Amino acid sequence: MAAEVRTIEQILSSADIDAVVICTPTDTHADLIEQFSRAGKAIFCEKPIDLNVERVKACLKVVDAEGATLMVGFNRRFDPHFMAVHDVIAKGEIGAVEMVTIVSRDPGAPPVDYIKRSGGIFHDMTIHDFDMARFLLGEEIDTVTARASVLVDPAIGAAGDYDSVSVMLSTASGKHATISNSRRATYGYDQRIEVHGSKGAVSAENQRPVSIEVANATGYTRPPLHDFFMTRYTDAYAREISTFVDAVESKSPASPSGLDGLIALALADAALKSVKEGRAVKVSEVLGVLADKSTFQGR
Amino acid sequence: MAAEVRTIEQILSSADIDAVVICTPTDTHADLIEQFSRAGKAIFCEKPIDLNVERVKACLKVVDAEGATLMVGFNRRFDPHFMAVHDVIAKGEIGAVEMVTIVSRDPGAPPVDYIKRSGGIFHDMTIHDFDMARFLLGEEIDTVTARASVLVDPAIGAAGDYDSVSVMLSTASGKHATISNSRRATYGYDQRIEVHGSKGAVSAENQRPVSIEVANATGYTRPPLHDFFMTRYTDAYAREISTFVDAVESKSPASPSGLDGLIALALADAALKSVKEGRAVKVSEVLGVLADKSTFQGR
Amino acid sequence: MAAEVRTIEQILSSADIDAVVICTPTDTHADLIEQFSRAGKAIFCEKPIDLNVERVKACLKVVDAEGATLMVGFNRRFDPHFMAVHDVIAKGEIGAVEMVTIVSRDPGAPPVDYIKRSGGIFHDMTIHDFDMARFLLGEEIDTVTARASVLVDPAIGAAGDYDSVSVMLSTASGKHATISNSRRATYGYDQRIEVHGSKGAVSAENQRPVSIEVANATGYTRPPLHDFFMTRYTDAYAREISTFVDAVESKSPASPSGLDGLIALALADAALKSVKEGRAVKVSEVLGVLADKSTFQGR
Amino acid sequence: MAAEVRTIEQILSSADIDAVVICTPTDTHADLIEQFSRAGKAIFCEKPIDLNVERVKACLKVVDAEGATLMVGFNRRFDPHFMAVHDVIAKGEIGAVEMVTIVSRDPGAPPVDYIKRSGGIFHDMTIHDFDMARFLLGEEIDTVTARASVLVDPAIGAAGDYDSVSVMLSTASGKHATISNSRRATYGYDQRIEVHGSKGAVSAENQRPVSIEVANATGYTRPPLHDFFMTRYTDAYAREISTFVDAVESKSPASPSGLDGLIALALADAALKSVKEGRAVKVSEVLGVLADKSTFQGR
Repeated sequence: MAAEVRTIEQILSSADIDAVVICTPTDTHADLIEQFSRAGKAIFCEKPIDLNVERVKACLKVVDAEGATLMVGFNRRFDPHFMAVHDVIAKGEIGAVEMVTIVSRDPGAPPVDYIKRSGGIFHDMTIHDFDMARFLLGEEIDTVTARASVLVDPAIGAAGDYDSVSVMLSTASGKHATISNSRRATYGYDQRIEVHGSKGAVSAENQRPVSIEVANATGYTRPPLHDFFMTRYTDAYAREISTFVDAVESKSPASPSGLDGLIALALADAALKSVKEGRAVKVSEVLGVLADKSTFQGR
Repeated sequence: MAAEVRTIEQILSSADIDAVVICTPTDTHADLIEQFSRAGKAIFCEKPIDLNVERVKACLKVVDAEGATLMVGFNRRFDPHFMAVHDVIAKGEIGAVEMVTIVSRDPGAPPVDYIKRSGGIFHDMTIHDFDMARFLLGEEIDTVTARASVLVDPAIGAAGDYDSVSVMLSTASGKHATISNSRRATYGYDQRIEVHGSKGAVSAENQRPVSIEVANATGYTRPPLHDFFMTRYTDAYAREISTFVDAVESKSPASPSGLDGLIALALADAALKSVKEGRAVKVSEVLGVLADKSTFQGR
Repeated sequence: MAAEVRTIEQILSSADIDAVVICTPTDTHADLIEQFSRAGKAIFCEKPIDLNVERVKACLKVVDAEGATLMVGFNRRFDPHFMAVHDVIAKGEIGAVEMVTIVSRDPGAPPVDYIKRSGGIFHDMTIHDFDMARFLLGEEIDTVTARASVLVDPAIGAAGDYDSVSVMLSTASGKHATISNSRRATYGYDQRIEVHGSKGAVSAENQRPVSIEVANATGYTRPPLHDFFMTRYTDAYAREISTFVDAVESKSPASPSGLDGLIALALADAALKSVKEGRAVKVSEVLGVLADKSTFQGR
Repeated sequence: MAAEVRTIEQILSSADIDAVVICTPTDTHADLIEQFSRAGKAIFCEKPIDLNVERVKACLKVVDAEGATLMVGFNRRFDPHFMAVHDVIAKGEIGAVEMVTIVSRDPGAPPVDYIKRSGGIFHDMTIHDFDMARFLLGEEIDTVTARASVLVDPAIGAAGDYDSVSVMLSTASGKHATISNSRRATYGYDQRIEVHGSKGAVSAENQRPVSIEVANATGYTRPPLHDFFMTRYTDAYAREISTFVDAVESKSPASPSGLDGLIALALADAALKSVKEGRAVKVSEVLGVLADKSTFQGR
């Protein structure tokens, strides 16, 4: 089945198009979101909305003014395993959430050219973990502390970025989240979350294409993990877009929202600032005080 | 998308139909296979072809005479985990196969009415494990020994069937396979295989909808298994039908073949005979000697 | 600390010796048990008491007549993991026991000379699994069906024994147990039990010296299992002898008893008979009817 | 076997005592170490040597001047599973170590009275993880960043301590270690380490008293973890003291040394300073520059 190609202008003026999915380069996202909002389209946009916090705020003001539906592509919230973790928490099975531990490692580093445009590891990779930490903590993050180094590829360092980072997040009430990222894992796409609470803990282990085990004189061996996000998060992508479609059809707010996109971006900015200044950084230093969060609902 | 309904007669005479999928009651399978063979259709038929060995043989003769493509629905051969086990064996990673262990338990018993028509546990349930044992052993089964009892539901016993069975299979060269079946498992659809060989072993563990773990004072708990075959073997069904389509398009033999269906049926007959007579039963006692296996290729 | 050596005669007449542990060759066990019984010693004897059922019966009559304490060395009953399985059953957590599955594989075959004296695989290896099946089934075994072949070492076959065996056991009420044995497992000493019941299941997985996992491009690898019974059952041996000491000190009956030893031997005899005659063998055919089981309490 | 009691003075003057094990309250450790060093005894001392870095330095100078053998009780280095992780690293199986992740949670908080004397969570609990991080990183820690809060028991906060802490450690070359601690885990004594390297990763999972699994309609449940360090680290304690005895007998340096004790203490001080000042703290800020590390070998 061949897809039909239309220009942005054609889409904007097409009465038969209710919703758009934006997968263009990052620096076009905010403009497109504003245009589509004004044209009355529901919008699904791959993260990030923009690499600049102020630009995102301005964009979300337009979205809100137009009452547009905007959903931001944090696909991992739709992974069935992570959703099940969230459900366990929501049901109170582990009591009050206290400490979230996220290990997230890519099988290999992207091209340095990509890194130069992406905003760096906190903005293209850890940003997913920032959103996941918020999703699981159930309380806004207050403070970000991060450490970063170049252990995988000196070219990444030469481009001004890092490839190995650790982050500690805390909330006002003292909840913790820890994130460990590397651009390289020889054993596949390492994606684990674990939540420790007052009454217990819940975790989602890694996924692999097949769950067999081979035993011989060298031991018991299970296959490597999925090779990357396309195979690891296949179900998540399907559920994500289905959720967006549901929101469009029911004309209800979509989640994760533009605000979720804004906050994850601010956390990435704060992490970078923490590395450069060697200190704990308040999120409010980079995000400002969102006097009225509903201003930025983006939904 | 609405499906179009045609009668058997219409299908037989439809030039625009190359292939058929037979999911009708068992006692219509053989007749339909013969008719579709004669009409030049490629055929996918849910197992069993028939509950009578002689009737299946007669049917396969027609298939062969017509040169029809016939594939029998042993879906488990297409499960990605079991396929991976088969691949490990095929690559020689565990050396010569020696002992196959299959545990297969249904979450709950079917209605007694179904059991009365199905031919009983060996013919509707163990038959899948017989096929799996053949798939993994790589050598024809020579002897069947079985034990059976009624532990789950007396109504099943009253209907003349069993709900808990154990089977030992052996090949001429002395390879073993063991099958353990129950009609009831409170923890879900229990489907495991394991193969012990001269150089190692390979196993496929159970599958569950989500792989999370909740820890608290009572221990570490993972969710129950899939609720039944529709969720457990979703991928297998998709690959199975895709394999059939490939065979139709390439006009090549399909596997599992009609012969595979015939032999699995004979193994079920032999198991029942073993239970009733309290002795090891040679497969040739119920199947006869297939002087020329190619006669029943069905592929 | 040097051990003190005394002859049998000296031990028999030593007033300072309350109990003996017999680890001599099998063909001396019954005589020694009788002598020590008459001398008023409590006796721990490594299995088997003898390879001849009638000789064991005669020996146990002496034990009973003397009111001696006799414990037979089925060490696996004292493994903490298997004991925990037994506890789960005893607490009713899995409901009524229905099917026991035992996989037991040695890392390598013993010398053929040993096999010639041991009575063969059913008597030196499977005998432990027969006892474990009884321990877990909670009902006496009624019927034994077995298959056996030579897949590991032709020299074992030349000596008249088998190295790869499968056994099905059933009780009068229809409970099943399945045993799978091989004389060779490249991945270590494979010792697993699993019990399926009306309300659930319980299993004890394999043990390894250290529980680490190494991940790399070839997958996730855990070390091989324990190398053999000395390391696998270290705790079991300590608990076993401690249980014997407790029985001696409290002058109470010891378990596993002489009767447990007798029945396990009969099951091994029945398994061999089943292989040779290709049929299900009643335990009573080899054991006779124990009109009054208390006759052979051996405790 | 009754132990013989001697006073400190008697021990100091006992020619038949070669070595001492110090398990007295922390504030007596340094004095005793100095006295026993001067008396020519080999010394095993439970950590910490003292809660004051300068006092420890002074003590170690005496140890060095006397050429005494001093071993500090970081028992976890002797856990067979953690030793196996260390061996995998030492053999180069995972390449260069890059990121160490330690999760360490106690089943329950100690009495607040203990916390008041212990120096707090970084000094009585995290100190073990600091040592483990050093043991695994293979490079001295350069910078400590920590976050701490009170989530378990307000009384702990009232006593001026924390019960939930996260720590990031980095080395000069950019290696990371992350530690997550809580004073309470409902599921038992949670002790996990994992090391990510350039060629792979290695981890040691949690230990439990028995490794069985019970399956029923609520899922698959394994028992809780060990109840605390006495059962979890039984083997480690035995190996630790055996290592000390070997060092005494061979008159060779013991490890972990007094220097290891000093550095772990400095890391705890640095963590506390990081929490209080909201910034990354250089270890040299609290430890000073150890111009000649051999000065403090303590071995």
